[in-house]
Amino acid sequence: MPDRVSCGNLDFLPALVQLSHKQPIIAVCGAGTCDPATDTLAEQVGHRLAKAGAILVCGGLGGVMEAACRGAVAAGGLTLGILPGSDCSAANPYVRIPIATGMGHARNVIIVQTADIVIAISGEYGTLSEIALARKCGRRVIGLHTWSLGQDLHGQLHVIPATTPDEAVIRALEEIPKP
Amino acid sequence: MPDRVSCGNLDFLPALVQLSHKQPIIAVCGAGTCDPATDTLAEQVGHRLAKAGAILVCGGLGGVMEAACRGAVAAGGLTLGILPGSDCSAANPYVRIPIATGMGHARNVIIVQTADIVIAISGEYGTLSEIALARKCGRRVIGLHTWSLGQDLHGQLHVIPATTPDEAVIRALEEIPKP
Amino acid sequence: MPDRVSCGNLDFLPALVQLSHKQPIIAVCGAGTCDPATDTLAEQVGHRLAKAGAILVCGGLGGVMEAACRGAVAAGGLTLGILPGSDCSAANPYVRIPIATGMGHARNVIIVQTADIVIAISGEYGTLSEIALARKCGRRVIGLHTWSLGQDLHGQLHVIPATTPDEAVIRALEEIPKP
Amino acid sequence: MPDRVSCGNLDFLPALVQLSHKQPIIAVCGAGTCDPATDTLAEQVGHRLAKAGAILVCGGLGGVMEAACRGAVAAGGLTLGILPGSDCSAANPYVRIPIATGMGHARNVIIVQTADIVIAISGEYGTLSEIALARKCGRRVIGLHTWSLGQDLHGQLHVIPATTPDEAVIRALEEIPKP
Repeated sequence: MPDRVSCGNLDFLPALVQLSHKQPIIAVCGAGTCDPATDTLAEQVGHRLAKAGAILVCGGLGGVMEAACRGAVAAGGLTLGILPGSDCSAANPYVRIPIATGMGHARNVIIVQTADIVIAISGEYGTLSEIALARKCGRRVIGLHTWSLGQDLHGQLHVIPATTPDEAVIRALEEIPKP
Repeated sequence: MPDRVSCGNLDFLPALVQLSHKQPIIAVCGAGTCDPATDTLAEQVGHRLAKAGAILVCGGLGGVMEAACRGAVAAGGLTLGILPGSDCSAANPYVRIPIATGMGHARNVIIVQTADIVIAISGEYGTLSEIALARKCGRRVIGLHTWSLGQDLHGQLHVIPATTPDEAVIRALEEIPKP
Repeated sequence: MPDRVSCGNLDFLPALVQLSHKQPIIAVCGAGTCDPATDTLAEQVGHRLAKAGAILVCGGLGGVMEAACRGAVAAGGLTLGILPGSDCSAANPYVRIPIATGMGHARNVIIVQTADIVIAISGEYGTLSEIALARKCGRRVIGLHTWSLGQDLHGQLHVIPATTPDEAVIRALEEIPKP
Repeated sequence: MPDRVSCGNLDFLPALVQLSHKQPIIAVCGAGTCDPATDTLAEQVGHRLAKAGAILVCGGLGGVMEAACRGAVAAGGLTLGILPGSDCSAANPYVRIPIATGMGHARNVIIVQTADIVIAISGEYGTLSEIALARKCGRRVIGLHTWSLGQDLHGQLHVIPATTPDEAVIRALEEIPKP
């Protein structure tokens, strides 16, 4: 397993991860580079998601994705990285399960389809594509300092706004469709 | 999380799964329907993989995939299902982490790229495509009662044969490239 | 070729299509169902694109996609349909070259990457995803009665607005990056 | 359209291509590099396919793909290149319509699904994956000096053998399923 060992300069120990079929899978979307304030927001979102028992899925690279994974791992959470490339070694060091799609931007579709709900943090065109694809696939989107798209014909906001990491995670857990 | 809750008639309890960056990810490939003898082989492969500390990745559906996941879960292992469809509810009940690609047969590429090595069990054209894609992507393939493809120009077998589940798992662990 | 013959109730004759390496490939994006006014806009865009010598690429289904193809074919143009499904028979009858991706919404990435520039007409979340993916991939987007996304940090509009089919096509041809 | 203009050192003129809905789409699969003898075989296959009125679809790169496109273009045929990368400029100069999938090996699925039938010429693991995916998708495969896979449980050969380019094209046209 050279790929993942090569990103093995990890500062966390092997972990016991609690798994059950009651756990939601929640996507965190955002840019591959970000400023320190956004990094902190994303890390806090990841930490709270893990504390709440959610599995975090993201694009597996840097920036918002890495910060969210870092936060989740610090809280003992499980992190999935749906990578654009074909080599798991591109995953940030906090991705516990890397998935090497080799499909470039098309992997954004896999991220949102795999998630029960999506939290978008800041971000640019890639994040906008994930918001749009999530909505197209019937997933709700919680937005934290991200694209504001107004409302649909029924007066519902395209993106549900949150102002803090706590609020984003609470709204995400509330908005997951019930079985 | 309606999708996974809808496959929630599970006969296993929430589990503590040990995760570390020393764990290999090993793919098990085979047909979506299979006879009882093949089912038993696949279940034993999955069980031994989990006992050996490997993460199992597969296509997430029935037949060989379900049997391998059943065996792995019984041994406390972690199972990833890279699904062809866009709905996690199509996963067999022993998939702990479903990935909804929505990409049809193209998901076979993701399975083999995500794995360190591939074990192919019986199977038909889909399995043959996974063997070929694995080899194309530089992954070795252990074969258990599957396609026999002869040898390459250097006299190396395209598929490394095994005759029992134990042998397949031992060879898989041996053949994973060292960092 | 049963798939395409099954959509063979065509009202146009075999055509001689002029091909040269000077022809741009232009994407037309929009919803799979649309009202008559939008249908007319899309048909006119397709017609003008073909008159201008462009190859039209789209998602190959109904609504805006079908109207644009209808307009292009009426002007002797070439139309590519990048289909979400695995069966060419889902293409609208004005698609001359169907491409069966079987990749669902991920085919939106292929549409915009194949195009030199994108014209978005009306549309909903799918169209928004194509706008975002186009921008992510460095393609400019001309918008005709579609999502208005404001401007970027450099004061440039994310979507270049047009008010008529003629203006949309003229702007598209102007905005294609020069070699 | 810088991408395609950048591969504009073409030795062929703009062409009038005859399009009708009676034309089959036939895939030619083979390795991205090949010896001169295989190059000649592939060029002859492409030439005969175009003479027979078929549209050629391939992976758009070099070797067998380029030779087949060269032969088809010399006979006035239409050639589609389903590229693994996200940049049309990687297409060989005889691809008239490049499709930039950005999906790596997963583009093999698109090639075979788009075709009515597949001709495999020589080739290695990539070609084997295309043979397997074609069969999985219900497409017949004509083989010219390629993988020999024996027969299925009903005594039918997995790959229909041909020994010359003429025979390969004649068999391909014969074996296309009738509507």
